[in-house]
Amino acid sequence: METTDEKYNCELQKAAVMLKQAEKVSILIHVSPDGDAIGCSAALKLALERLGKKASVLCSDKIPEKYSFLPLKNEIKQESQEEHGDAFVVAVDLADEKLFGEKLQAYAGKVQLCFDHHSSNTHYADFTVLDPKAAAACEIIADLMKFLNVVIDKDIANCIYTGLATDTGCFRYSCTRPKTLRMAADLIEKGADFSFINKLLFETNTRARLELEKRAMETLHYYFNGHVAVIVITLETLRAAGADESELEGVASMPIRIKDVLVGITAKEKEPGVYKISVRTTGGVDASAICSELGGGGHKAAAGCKMEGTLEQVRDAILVSVGKAL
Amino acid sequence: METTDEKYNCELQKAAVMLKQAEKVSILIHVSPDGDAIGCSAALKLALERLGKKASVLCSDKIPEKYSFLPLKNEIKQESQEEHGDAFVVAVDLADEKLFGEKLQAYAGKVQLCFDHHSSNTHYADFTVLDPKAAAACEIIADLMKFLNVVIDKDIANCIYTGLATDTGCFRYSCTRPKTLRMAADLIEKGADFSFINKLLFETNTRARLELEKRAMETLHYYFNGHVAVIVITLETLRAAGADESELEGVASMPIRIKDVLVGITAKEKEPGVYKISVRTTGGVDASAICSELGGGGHKAAAGCKMEGTLEQVRDAILVSVGKAL
Repeated sequence: METTDEKYNCELQKAAVMLKQAEKVSILIHVSPDGDAIGCSAALKLALERLGKKASVLCSDKIPEKYSFLPLKNEIKQESQEEHGDAFVVAVDLADEKLFGEKLQAYAGKVQLCFDHHSSNTHYADFTVLDPKAAAACEIIADLMKFLNVVIDKDIANCIYTGLATDTGCFRYSCTRPKTLRMAADLIEKGADFSFINKLLFETNTRARLELEKRAMETLHYYFNGHVAVIVITLETLRAAGADESELEGVASMPIRIKDVLVGITAKEKEPGVYKISVRTTGGVDASAICSELGGGGHKAAAGCKMEGTLEQVRDAILVSVGKAL
Repeated sequence: METTDEKYNCELQKAAVMLKQAEKVSILIHVSPDGDAIGCSAALKLALERLGKKASVLCSDKIPEKYSFLPLKNEIKQESQEEHGDAFVVAVDLADEKLFGEKLQAYAGKVQLCFDHHSSNTHYADFTVLDPKAAAACEIIADLMKFLNVVIDKDIANCIYTGLATDTGCFRYSCTRPKTLRMAADLIEKGADFSFINKLLFETNTRARLELEKRAMETLHYYFNGHVAVIVITLETLRAAGADESELEGVASMPIRIKDVLVGITAKEKEPGVYKISVRTTGGVDASAICSELGGGGHKAAAGCKMEGTLEQVRDAILVSVGKAL
């Protein structure tokens, strides 16, 4: 079995040896899969197939339509564990078994190897390759390639680039490091369609999403001298915009992007009288403290909680908590 | 005097020698200065000052408030030529004397050295260092530093990073090349406050800008089965949003970002009955052809023209031209 060290910090070289010994590999990714999860699982699957192995990507949720440009669009499956009974089980970009989702429940306690960049990783796998400084799990998977002796070709480059670009907001966020940018440069040289991918990920909005943003902006209200901005997205907003849940990605960061706003709050109605509150902060205000007061939690600059009541009750309660944090 | 070759393609090394020989340097930038013009002129000024020279940046327009984080905010002047009578005159990121603006008219025909990345550069300077493959003029100025024997420190790194990020839409656009990304990585290592700069440039909207976008989106109409989208910004829209001209940056790309839209049109009322039309295209549709029909011009994917008439007349005329191009 693994040593404690390797459970917490397994070397890439050893991880590569484990993968090389496997004949069949199941690759698990988290619910609501994003570009990093999809990109690094697809890259790993391609690499393992190049080595003559069988590999499948498993996910509880459907892969969003916008990632259909990746070479594996139809390969990401939502299968029962039975079909993969003898496979070596790997998880990528997956910090916690809580994120397995309904269809992957049977894999709880059975993940043998995990590649992740979340410092919150719960070390549920037998071996974990963890680099919290990596901007994306794709950074780790890209480094794994040389230990697998797989040359990064255009298809793999597209997968990895997608993960890097997704998790860094196209190299905007503070998680971007020099290594991330140099890796992106290498991937472009290997043929990654970076301009196409960037346009698709960052410059394409559906009509429904635009309609949703317009309606959300119509609910925008400022409090505390303009330092707090609140938007509300009700079930009726979604319906009227013709938008579904998948089109809500990134909506929570709309209010914090307004000049002079220190606390940006998004209240999304999940069912009548039940709201998911997303809090984003800047300038040192603690989002986590605001949400803890209300039974939720998160990080310093991004946190959330769930609240029940009328919209007015919910808003008033949040503003009281915000007032304490300011 | 210069040879024809050097007028069109002067080596960086020779340009550096010219700058080293100067005691006083005036650096000209274009009207409506953007992050690249401001960034590379500021970087060059800092470098020349490190070499013990006097250097001033001259611009016909005010520097937008959002660039006030750069170390030279109060140094960019709108001065008369008399004060700089004996200075060596350099232009950066400046393709054409037409872009000098009113206050720099006296410099027409007097620019001795130009650093630029626009293929449309008219070679108005005695010597031009031109690299049309550079994503930003800042790429060229960064390369110049080693020939000037100036070490890029945090201040210069911030200036150059600002230019790279501005002209590439934070490394999103197709003009980004591996060299651009590697240069950005180097600048981060030299201390560039990339996260702060990115947030300021790409994630901060004024309340007026948001209000403007909301009102512009309310005018959104689709034509040709959703392949053509048109938004209108009237003088009244600007007034009601409390926005000024400087807050219109990037507005012209709003309609083309909508899924399935091939032609995105923005009509901005410049004075009553006079519209500036911006056309953005994708999927091979020729924006330049659409605008040429209407007395304007531009590039394949981005062009413009000026039209007079009622909003209905203007829109109908554009749609006829669009119909021919589709």
